[in-house]
Amino acid sequence: MASLPELSYNGRLESSRSSPQHRGGLQSSMDYGYASVKPVQLGICGLGTVGSGVVRVLQRNRAELSARAGRDLVIRQIGARRDRPDCDTTGIAVTRDVFEVVRNPEVEVVLELIGGTTTARELVLEAIAQGKHVVTANKALIAEHGNELFAAARERGVMVQFEAGVAGGIPIIKAIREGLAANRIEWLAGIINGTGNFILTEMRAGRSFGEVLSHAQALGYAEADPTFDVEGIDAAHKLVILAALAFGMPLQFDKVYTEGISRLSLLDVEYAEELGYRIKHLGIARRTERGVELRVHPTLVPESLLLANVNGVMNAVLVQGDAVGPTLYYGAGAGAEPTASAVLADVVDVARQQGTDPASRVPFLAFHDQALETLPVLPIDEVESAWYLRMSALDQPGVLSRVASILSEAGISIEALIQKAPLPEQDHVPLILLTNPCLGASMDKAVARIEALDSIDGAVVRLRTEPLAG
Amino acid sequence: MASLPELSYNGRLESSRSSPQHRGGLQSSMDYGYASVKPVQLGICGLGTVGSGVVRVLQRNRAELSARAGRDLVIRQIGARRDRPDCDTTGIAVTRDVFEVVRNPEVEVVLELIGGTTTARELVLEAIAQGKHVVTANKALIAEHGNELFAAARERGVMVQFEAGVAGGIPIIKAIREGLAANRIEWLAGIINGTGNFILTEMRAGRSFGEVLSHAQALGYAEADPTFDVEGIDAAHKLVILAALAFGMPLQFDKVYTEGISRLSLLDVEYAEELGYRIKHLGIARRTERGVELRVHPTLVPESLLLANVNGVMNAVLVQGDAVGPTLYYGAGAGAEPTASAVLADVVDVARQQGTDPASRVPFLAFHDQALETLPVLPIDEVESAWYLRMSALDQPGVLSRVASILSEAGISIEALIQKAPLPEQDHVPLILLTNPCLGASMDKAVARIEALDSIDGAVVRLRTEPLAG
Repeated sequence: MASLPELSYNGRLESSRSSPQHRGGLQSSMDYGYASVKPVQLGICGLGTVGSGVVRVLQRNRAELSARAGRDLVIRQIGARRDRPDCDTTGIAVTRDVFEVVRNPEVEVVLELIGGTTTARELVLEAIAQGKHVVTANKALIAEHGNELFAAARERGVMVQFEAGVAGGIPIIKAIREGLAANRIEWLAGIINGTGNFILTEMRAGRSFGEVLSHAQALGYAEADPTFDVEGIDAAHKLVILAALAFGMPLQFDKVYTEGISRLSLLDVEYAEELGYRIKHLGIARRTERGVELRVHPTLVPESLLLANVNGVMNAVLVQGDAVGPTLYYGAGAGAEPTASAVLADVVDVARQQGTDPASRVPFLAFHDQALETLPVLPIDEVESAWYLRMSALDQPGVLSRVASILSEAGISIEALIQKAPLPEQDHVPLILLTNPCLGASMDKAVARIEALDSIDGAVVRLRTEPLAG
Repeated sequence: MASLPELSYNGRLESSRSSPQHRGGLQSSMDYGYASVKPVQLGICGLGTVGSGVVRVLQRNRAELSARAGRDLVIRQIGARRDRPDCDTTGIAVTRDVFEVVRNPEVEVVLELIGGTTTARELVLEAIAQGKHVVTANKALIAEHGNELFAAARERGVMVQFEAGVAGGIPIIKAIREGLAANRIEWLAGIINGTGNFILTEMRAGRSFGEVLSHAQALGYAEADPTFDVEGIDAAHKLVILAALAFGMPLQFDKVYTEGISRLSLLDVEYAEELGYRIKHLGIARRTERGVELRVHPTLVPESLLLANVNGVMNAVLVQGDAVGPTLYYGAGAGAEPTASAVLADVVDVARQQGTDPASRVPFLAFHDQALETLPVLPIDEVESAWYLRMSALDQPGVLSRVASILSEAGISIEALIQKAPLPEQDHVPLILLTNPCLGASMDKAVARIEALDSIDGAVVRLRTEPLAG
């Protein structure tokens, strides 16, 4: 079955596949047995964590990558301002000007790994204008400027790949865009920010949000300014990409509802567990008859679901298709080499399809251009959810019945209830409820009425819970 | 962004995308907006559970499928002996001779859904000889005859796709073959037989293998002759396919070690739980310096792993890549529509790439032909595992020390131990051990010596446990 390559430097390809010693970016492709096929010339822009990881994995696994792509992969040039990257650039041309890489006539595929949305956008547009294919790990760029970039790329007949943009090394974009192509996708729900999931996992051990955040910052899991991660902006970038692929609609980043985890109390983590749930920071996209839901918020997930058991910095995405039912994809959502894994999988796809008719390639947003529909996105108060409510109630008869009748008048029924014993010398007790699904607007009104009761102290804490299967 | 199609029957593609009423196989492609592109002509062979599911999903989601493929998909002919399929074949030409479908000059893509390995092999070879692309759901066919079929297909320049062959609707073949292309895959471990997983899940409630099997048969989850599922043959078919894709080697079905779950005792299910494990019937492929391990056997999995929490008929595959780390893929491993989901995803891939140069397509076994290596498969006694041992020991001092010294002399150390109190009027007690990893051959010898002790009654029960991460 395994025939020897026609022209092979080693004579035996086994030896080249097994050798761990493929270093540098400028060897001939002859020792990989693909001498008759022109190597693919890569230009890498950015040599931070991800860029360095890409260079390392490419050098280490070059033989495997070439054997899968059917062509050798060569780093023609790197553009980076960093002087001491976490990789070996011996023998590779390095410039400080990333635009030089994009304009290098020998570079065929540009890897945009600089991050940000201003220079990155210009860089990618320039690469497309130069007729080069692009692979990016930049979720913000795709979420905010993807429609523009894809239009330019379509015009020019080049590929723009972005697997690394969502959930790091998990091949979730390929799964949704290709693997589930036969399905009408009904909804998806994902743990798509590792920092937030690490914090929520650690809070289960009884440590407060602030305490765990400091620990995460010390470990390098959280930025000095953690807003992007803990307020759900990063997750919103990823969610809007997943939703576009799942439902066949253009990217609509400004429509995502975002609620962070920074105000989450340990009490709620504990009561949720008592009720059989874990609190996860989910990105949820759902197709309804009235429109599409796009939302990121803390969510109570039944502990029997795999999604509830995804811990630490790991990511997972649960996707519900009408034919396949629920499927789940789990893995590292960040980190140098997991992200490099996704970037280089895209490079292999591009290398293989470089000379093909654009019509034979997977459409940017899964559906062919003329089939994309700008589906309306529902405002959050028109989204239906079941709810977890916690309030501080005066410890006297009749309070629960008043709360229940307010909910009932709003058409909301109670699914479960915990009433705690009062602490010594306290006249208020925690009252925790789980409700049936209702519109956000109905809950807003009911909560306003409950908060107005004399027997209820302070604000009502509310969190969503979702009827996820899988 | 979303421009209207140039030529569209409805004028608005939204209407056609949203309508649930696309029935039958012979409509014009005009109402999908791809009138300028020739529809793909499908020939379906087999109209059992999977075939009917494929027809149903294709009819229901035809607009979505076409929007993803960029071409309409038309069923040109069906070959089936069944008179009352679970789908509507109105308007589709149906013949009882599957070879007529394969030889129909209008059919471009053959869907082999008849099962078995004799007629199916002839059918696929004939389809390839006729220059037609093939999509199959047949794991046995690929595992046993894949090398021959791929060689023929390579010669003829056609595609042979088999996503539905492993883990039903989970796009695991695409994930390994494309999504993880940048990795050197180190090992994979999967729950790849739903019947077996259903039985093991139900046994946790204290019901014996035989009792649960009868129940599974009544529910239609198990065949009247369950050998294929419970003895691991079905899992071995799937494992050999996954291993070939992961490691880049030809299919070697006859080399898989297979051990079933039919002799599994409830006692061991319970003791495993006491030790923090669940027993799962895993297919495991691992690359070691001495060769490749290919094995299907009941395995103790730490309860903290997602894999341990995959219940009922669901499947999951955990894959360890050197760059990405562990990733897991979960979903329905069987059933009409989950399997149809995978078959039709393959059809979309084929439809898109029909006119492309074969070199631009993903290689059959992930690696290009000349890079495939026939790696040696280790015999099971040369495979290293940690072990769970259960024995019936005379309830007197010194027995444990004799057992421990036999293990120690074989270089095996004890990791954990449970010694049960004797039942009333019993002179023997159950003794349960977990050991460090050792070669199967070392354990064979140690167990023979333990069984020869006067103080040990009967055979030593042994099960493997694996150091899986993820």
